[in-house]
Amino acid sequence: MKSLNIAILGCGNVGGGVARILTELKEELSVKASCNLELKKIVELYPENSIKRFDLPAGLFCGGGRELTMAEADRYIEELVHSDDIDIIVEAIGGSGDSIYRTAIDICKSKKHLVTANKALLAERGKGIFDAANENNVIVGYEASVCAAIPIVKTIKECFTGDSIVSISGIMNGTSNYILSKMQNENLEFKEALKMARKEGYAEADPTLDINGYDAGHKLIILIKLAFGINITIKDLSVKGIENINKEDIGFATEIDSKIKLICYAKRIDGKIYATVCPMMVKNSNFLSEVNGPTNAVRVINKYSGRHILIGSGAGSLETASSIVADIVFIARYSAKMKNDFKKSDFSFINPSHFVFPYMIIFDTVDIPGITGLVTTSVGNQDINIDTVGHNRHIKDKALFSVATTPCTLQQVENAIKEIRSSNPKVLLKEPKIMPILY
Amino acid sequence: MKSLNIAILGCGNVGGGVARILTELKEELSVKASCNLELKKIVELYPENSIKRFDLPAGLFCGGGRELTMAEADRYIEELVHSDDIDIIVEAIGGSGDSIYRTAIDICKSKKHLVTANKALLAERGKGIFDAANENNVIVGYEASVCAAIPIVKTIKECFTGDSIVSISGIMNGTSNYILSKMQNENLEFKEALKMARKEGYAEADPTLDINGYDAGHKLIILIKLAFGINITIKDLSVKGIENINKEDIGFATEIDSKIKLICYAKRIDGKIYATVCPMMVKNSNFLSEVNGPTNAVRVINKYSGRHILIGSGAGSLETASSIVADIVFIARYSAKMKNDFKKSDFSFINPSHFVFPYMIIFDTVDIPGITGLVTTSVGNQDINIDTVGHNRHIKDKALFSVATTPCTLQQVENAIKEIRSSNPKVLLKEPKIMPILY
Repeated sequence: MKSLNIAILGCGNVGGGVARILTELKEELSVKASCNLELKKIVELYPENSIKRFDLPAGLFCGGGRELTMAEADRYIEELVHSDDIDIIVEAIGGSGDSIYRTAIDICKSKKHLVTANKALLAERGKGIFDAANENNVIVGYEASVCAAIPIVKTIKECFTGDSIVSISGIMNGTSNYILSKMQNENLEFKEALKMARKEGYAEADPTLDINGYDAGHKLIILIKLAFGINITIKDLSVKGIENINKEDIGFATEIDSKIKLICYAKRIDGKIYATVCPMMVKNSNFLSEVNGPTNAVRVINKYSGRHILIGSGAGSLETASSIVADIVFIARYSAKMKNDFKKSDFSFINPSHFVFPYMIIFDTVDIPGITGLVTTSVGNQDINIDTVGHNRHIKDKALFSVATTPCTLQQVENAIKEIRSSNPKVLLKEPKIMPILY
Repeated sequence: MKSLNIAILGCGNVGGGVARILTELKEELSVKASCNLELKKIVELYPENSIKRFDLPAGLFCGGGRELTMAEADRYIEELVHSDDIDIIVEAIGGSGDSIYRTAIDICKSKKHLVTANKALLAERGKGIFDAANENNVIVGYEASVCAAIPIVKTIKECFTGDSIVSISGIMNGTSNYILSKMQNENLEFKEALKMARKEGYAEADPTLDINGYDAGHKLIILIKLAFGINITIKDLSVKGIENINKEDIGFATEIDSKIKLICYAKRIDGKIYATVCPMMVKNSNFLSEVNGPTNAVRVINKYSGRHILIGSGAGSLETASSIVADIVFIARYSAKMKNDFKKSDFSFINPSHFVFPYMIIFDTVDIPGITGLVTTSVGNQDINIDTVGHNRHIKDKALFSVATTPCTLQQVENAIKEIRSSNPKVLLKEPKIMPILY
C-alpha cells in the first residue's frame, strides 16, 4: 500500500486535534484512504502543552519536543514545505498576514496539497492561493474553514451537484448565537450574555470578530465562491454584528413569532447574487430559529430538491480536526481527479440595498400624538405595505415601537426613514434598526 | 471534452425527474463533471405521460415515443445494457424481484456504472449487486435510495471519513411521519390521519410498507452497511410500524415532553451493532422531534465531531432525481478512483433485546386498587429504575397508564411484563406497548 505523508504546522487547538485523530484512527483511516496516512512531523513553538493535551509522542515534533524560537520554527517550516518526503501540509497556524499567505503559496508551489481551517486567509486572500494551487495541480482542502464539523463544503461541492443552489442561509458564528440564545432564553442584556459566554468558554478574550459579524462574513464569502463561483471580499459584503441588539429588540421579535439570529444569507436571482450578514428576525417556523447556543446550522434551498438543513458543531478542537482529516482522506482518494473549482459563472454581486425582504424596523421616537401616523404614512409613501405595527413601549417620554413590512427593498426602507426625518427632524431619537425577517 | 453516455430504465416519477434535470442543466452539469453528460436513451412502457410531464423529446425514448410491449421493453433494456455506447445506467424501474435483480447484475457485468434509488433491491439483495460491481470495477450509486434528497450516503461515505460513527438515528419514512404529525397536531386517530395522508398524496393506495416500518428498515439496512460495513437483512432487524399508535399514546408522550416518531436507530457499542426500527418517544429537546410532515431527517453522532443533523425532502420526483444526478456527476469525476466499499469490519449484529434505552411502557390493565403497586414492583424487581409513572386515564373499568424507565434492556422490560402476568394472569388487558425514549 502506498503512503501519503503529512506535516502539521501549528499544534494548538486545531493542529493538535488533527494529530490526535491521525494517530488514534491510523488503521481505520488507511483502509478508508486506501493508503497509509503517515503523520511525519509537527512544527510548534511550544510543544509541551500539545504533547500532554493530545497525548502525542515528542518525537513527532521538529526539535524533539523542546520549545522553538520563531527563527527555528520558520526554518523547520521551510524544510517541510520543500521536503520530498511530505505530500500534504495541514496549516493550523492561523492569521491572514503576509507570512502565512507566503507559506500557503509556497506549499502549493512545492506541489504539496494544503489543508486548512483558516477562514480569514481564504476569504481575504483565497484567490491567490487557489490560483497557485491550480497552477501546480495541488488541492486546497478547506472543509474545516466553514462551520467546523458541518461538512457544508463537500455537501455543496460534491453532493448538491445534481441541482442548482438558489440560496444559502445560516448561523455560522457560535459565539454570537450563544449570546443571542442567552439573551432570548434568560432575558439578559447583551453585556451580561457576553460575560456568560466568556465564562463558559464560548467567547475569546477579544471577541470582536465574532460579535461584529466578520467571522461569519469570512465563512459566507467562502461559501459564495463555492456555490456561485464568484470572488468577493468582506468589503463587498454588507456586514452587521449583534453589538446593538437589546432586550427590547428581542421582545419585538417575539411579538412576530421570531427569534433574532445573526444570519449569513446569499441568494441567486437570475444572474445576480445578493448577500449580507446581519441580525435577522427568524420566524419560529424556520428551523434556524431552533438552533441555540454554540451550534451552527446551514440552510440551503436548491432548485430541484428544495430545502436542506445541516446542523452541527461550529467550533472545537476535535470537531474542526475531524473535517481536516476528512479532507486528507478525500485528497488521498481522489486528488488525481479533484479540482479546486468545478464552477464557471458570470454572476454579478449586488449591493444589498436592492435586497427584497420583509423588514422589521424598530423606531425609537419622541412620544407625541400622531407619531405612529407620521411613521406609517412615510412607510406607505415608499410603496411599502405594512404587515404589523408592534406594541408601543412608551419608555419614559419616548416611544419605542416596531413596524414589520411585507417584502420590499432596503432602499425603500431607508427612503421612508429619510422622509420621516425630513418631515420632522427631531422625531427620531436614534437611527432606526432595520432587520430582515427570515421565513 | 470526453463524454459519458447515460441510459434511463423506467421514466416514471424518478426516471422522468432524472431525464428532466439532465436535459435542463446539461451545460452546468458538463462543467461540474468535466465531461459531457449525454442522456442517450430511455426505456419506458408508456412514454406519453412522461413526455408531457417532464417535457422530454419523444426521440429519446426507445421506440420513438410509442407504447411498448413488455417483450419490446425487455429487448431494448437488453440492448442498452450490452451497448458499447452507454457508460452509466439509471435503474428507475423499482421492485426487488428476480428480473430487476438480474438486470442490475447484467449492468455491472457489462461494465456499466449503475445508479439507482431502489432501496428494496439494495437492502434485500445488495450483496450480490455490490459483489458483481466490484468484480467488474464499476460503481453502484445509491444516494437516492436513502432519504431521497438528503445526501446522507455521500455524507457518511465521503464527508465523515475523518471520524468514527457512533450512532445513526432518523426519520426516514415521510408517510409515517406525516401521519404521526397529523395525529399529534390535530388530535386525530391513526385511521383519520391515514385518510388525510392519502388525500394529500403522502400515502400510496397501498401504504403497507410505509406504515409497517419496512421501507424505513430498508433504508437503515443500507446505512448500516455503509457506516459499519456489515450486511444484515430485514429479518435480522427488529421492525415495528405505527399501525397501533393511538391518541392515548401521544398523550403519554406529551406528558414526558416528547413526540412519537417512527425512528430508525443503529448504534455501535464496542464491537457490536444494535439496531431497530420502531416508534420512539423523542424528547422535545431532540431536533428530530421538530421534524414534521413528510420531511426526513437523520442524526449522526460521531466520536470526535459529535452530533450532526441533516434535514430535507425524503421523497418526490425531482428531489430524488437530484440525488441520482449527483451520483452521475460523482462517477464522472471520480469513478477511476472510487470504491463501492471503503470499510472493513468485524462488527457483530446484536439482537435488540439487549438494547439499552430508557423505555416507555404503556399498560392497559384492569382498574383495581393496587394495580400501580403490582406493576411498579415487578418493574423494580427486574432492577429497572422508574423515572415517571404517567397520569392514569381510568377509561371505563380499565386503567391506562405509563411507566417511563431509566436506561435498561428490552429484555428487562419484557421480564417485568412476564412477572406481572404470572403474578396475576388477568390483570393485563392488552400486551403493553414498549417504546424507547430518545434523548
